[in-house]
Amino acid sequence: MKGARKTVACLGGGLVGGGWAARFSQAGMDATVYDPAPDAPEKIRGVLENARRARRNLHPDWPEDFGEVRFAASVAEACAGAVFAQESAPERESLKTKLLAEADSVLPPEVVIASSTSGLRPTRLQAGMRRRPERLCVGHPFVPVYLLPLVEVCGGEKTAAETTAAAERFYREDCGMRPLVVRREIDGFVADRLMEALWREALWLARDDIATAEEIDDAVRFGCGLRWSFMGTFLAFRLGGGKDGMRHFLRQFGPALKLPWTKLTDVPELTDELVEKIVRQSDAQAGGMGADELERLRDECLTAVMKALRVPDFGAGRFLNERERAARRRESFPRDWSAPLILRRVRVPPEWIDYNGHMNESRYLQAASDASDALLRMLGADAEYAAGGRTFFTAETHLRHLAEAFAGDLIRAETRVVDGDEKRLHVFHRLQKADGEGWTTAATAEHMLLHVDARAGKAVPADGALARNMRRLLSAQSALPRPEGIGAKVGRR
Amino acid sequence: MKGARKTVACLGGGLVGGGWAARFSQAGMDATVYDPAPDAPEKIRGVLENARRARRNLHPDWPEDFGEVRFAASVAEACAGAVFAQESAPERESLKTKLLAEADSVLPPEVVIASSTSGLRPTRLQAGMRRRPERLCVGHPFVPVYLLPLVEVCGGEKTAAETTAAAERFYREDCGMRPLVVRREIDGFVADRLMEALWREALWLARDDIATAEEIDDAVRFGCGLRWSFMGTFLAFRLGGGKDGMRHFLRQFGPALKLPWTKLTDVPELTDELVEKIVRQSDAQAGGMGADELERLRDECLTAVMKALRVPDFGAGRFLNERERAARRRESFPRDWSAPLILRRVRVPPEWIDYNGHMNESRYLQAASDASDALLRMLGADAEYAAGGRTFFTAETHLRHLAEAFAGDLIRAETRVVDGDEKRLHVFHRLQKADGEGWTTAATAEHMLLHVDARAGKAVPADGALARNMRRLLSAQSALPRPEGIGAKVGRR
Repeated sequence: MKGARKTVACLGGGLVGGGWAARFSQAGMDATVYDPAPDAPEKIRGVLENARRARRNLHPDWPEDFGEVRFAASVAEACAGAVFAQESAPERESLKTKLLAEADSVLPPEVVIASSTSGLRPTRLQAGMRRRPERLCVGHPFVPVYLLPLVEVCGGEKTAAETTAAAERFYREDCGMRPLVVRREIDGFVADRLMEALWREALWLARDDIATAEEIDDAVRFGCGLRWSFMGTFLAFRLGGGKDGMRHFLRQFGPALKLPWTKLTDVPELTDELVEKIVRQSDAQAGGMGADELERLRDECLTAVMKALRVPDFGAGRFLNERERAARRRESFPRDWSAPLILRRVRVPPEWIDYNGHMNESRYLQAASDASDALLRMLGADAEYAAGGRTFFTAETHLRHLAEAFAGDLIRAETRVVDGDEKRLHVFHRLQKADGEGWTTAATAEHMLLHVDARAGKAVPADGALARNMRRLLSAQSALPRPEGIGAKVGRR
Repeated sequence: MKGARKTVACLGGGLVGGGWAARFSQAGMDATVYDPAPDAPEKIRGVLENARRARRNLHPDWPEDFGEVRFAASVAEACAGAVFAQESAPERESLKTKLLAEADSVLPPEVVIASSTSGLRPTRLQAGMRRRPERLCVGHPFVPVYLLPLVEVCGGEKTAAETTAAAERFYREDCGMRPLVVRREIDGFVADRLMEALWREALWLARDDIATAEEIDDAVRFGCGLRWSFMGTFLAFRLGGGKDGMRHFLRQFGPALKLPWTKLTDVPELTDELVEKIVRQSDAQAGGMGADELERLRDECLTAVMKALRVPDFGAGRFLNERERAARRRESFPRDWSAPLILRRVRVPPEWIDYNGHMNESRYLQAASDASDALLRMLGADAEYAAGGRTFFTAETHLRHLAEAFAGDLIRAETRVVDGDEKRLHVFHRLQKADGEGWTTAATAEHMLLHVDARAGKAVPADGALARNMRRLLSAQSALPRPEGIGAKVGRR
């Protein structure tokens, strides 16, 4: 396989060039990097490390059949054997044109040369290319290059149609990206115009002390930025028009374009023609989805994004975590421990559903595990207790699946402790789903929980209030009948 | 409890007013809505339904201790007993000032009146209030109001400091929102200025046929929009400055402000004073995090957001799903079935870690379940087969936890089939983690899988190629020794 790898020439190896090298390598191609800066290798190593971490997170089960990243001492060496060349030098026109001309002089005629420039026009970049200026186009990525799917492809006056087509195909098929071919050559292409518009307005707000950098970012990441992450601006505003979509939105908010809501006061005239064009494009984009359907989709995306950010504990995710902790502080537990305990109710969220259309088996264990955690909190072994080095580990689990559950179903755990001592609790949960007026058992979950010293990695006796609570619970539940289905093992009956 | 609920007056019940009613209700307050439009009740019912679905998704385990949403026939009736009033009438100044003046005339003096206006200045809105104009402020939310945390609070010339403080407290503490107090009264406040800057630039791009509505949205949602969802614009650009942060970024990209990258060409002068101010604010925002740490955080957030969008199958999530399907099509399986099968390797991603700092028990079952799915694909029972109505359900599972696994660990499943017939497979996975040169068993997972007719909900014999493959596998593995630990049950030994 190794001999069959494609090679890409990376001219320039900073944050962008290093990101490209990482992307090419992760896509199974070799990258040869030319960058005269003495710290380039060290910088790239850092980018490659970040990229590997990100890739493991994004596709945890993909093999790491990565290509090599090599350093070359010259443009010619970097270009040797390359099937594609990506220039990512600093944004100085003279520097870029010189590099591109040199690459043009050494690369075989069929090899496309793409520039990562975010603002220089390809027509000017190709001006110094003597052999084949028609093979030059812009391939403008976004940092981090190894993660963000977007790449803008834009040709100059001399660029051949085959060049942009080949670059688009290379980015899509070989690099797994999402190319956007920019129809007309303009300054800043599409994405940077949008980013700069936001940025220029943000600078005015900061300059005029309307808000600080952090407050301006908060205005984005706790509001519109969450929507932009999956819908962009047209589709989100379409929903502002209700059932009549973009036409209604443009009619209702068109007059606002005249208001000094930004420093951008030279706004396009909303002629009938422009309105019709945007309505047509917005309809095409909605792909037949009605307002109701789009609203539900928007809300499902919003909740998904907000919940996902709970793990890195940042932005809307940190905000949710704070709310969850506040809710946890208000948690109350039953006083009577002599009956089976109802400590946990949960609505099956969409992400618990698998390709069979029902709640995945691992999510039953998640529900049971959450119920065990609630039981442990009731006894006094919460996250704070765990932070002190002692906690409970599950040693063994037995699950039986008795009925299916679906998205939106209300599930509760009916929890019993059937045996135990100061080191262990033998717990039995009946996971029930609301079914008209009553509850149907969808699954049972039986666990052996051990009280451990986490650092030593061994079971130790609990003491103090926790031990007293464990004894009280065991005693309170000792008179209950043994649950049906306990003590079973997997196999044919 | 019910008698103790607070009541909020909602003046106007469209998309925004209905969203407020839903938010107040979900926060445990009653909402009384005044809206003369005949279709207001129906509209609000739709919003409440969406809001309930979103809340169940966002906080699946929170109780639904919702307040009532009632309709009132007049402003006075809506205001009776209210502790707070939220005006959300259409954006017409005359309409809003009339409503606000009427509310002012009937509400007790201590009740704050907030307007949802996105652009009208509070100084003008309070002009018609005869009794207490100082209790008026703007409380500008973002659609969907029941989900997005942001609300902008802004006072007018006559607004008392206590009013904005009380509104800020009410939104934060009673409504669970993220208020942003706007320091100075300006048109469009902060968020709408930013949204409008993007929107106005987007309209120019569409008008000039540089890109279509869909392409412009793609330029956002596959690129910068993903970053904006958790970082906003300053923090994201800070990373463009590398180790030297915002100062370097402003120096490097400051000249680009002069370029015609947007229609917004009247840009602030980057004076030393402005640079210093922004650098100071950016440093404060970064809270001591260095470039490396911020980059890792950014990447963790990006991967979290992109992966989360896989469930609604939209935007970057749909893009990832397509890539995953393509990878699945290239999946290959071992030819020799007589040895234990290695069908699955996975790196433990951050979201698999629980409060004990190690891989949560339910994620072991997820890894085992994924390995079972790979086995079933090998036999010919993939998602396409399941779509035809026949599939495998897990009836029973037994797990043993033998060692801990941590974020980044490489896990593989070593899979055995120990028994079965045309209706069932008794599967045993050893979940091993890479440990220097070898593999340590972290857990075992034993399952009884049944071949079912999903619609009839009962086990049926497999036939055709699937049945032949099941027989071949059972026969090939029949000579292997029985796995250690099989057939165990939960309980003391």
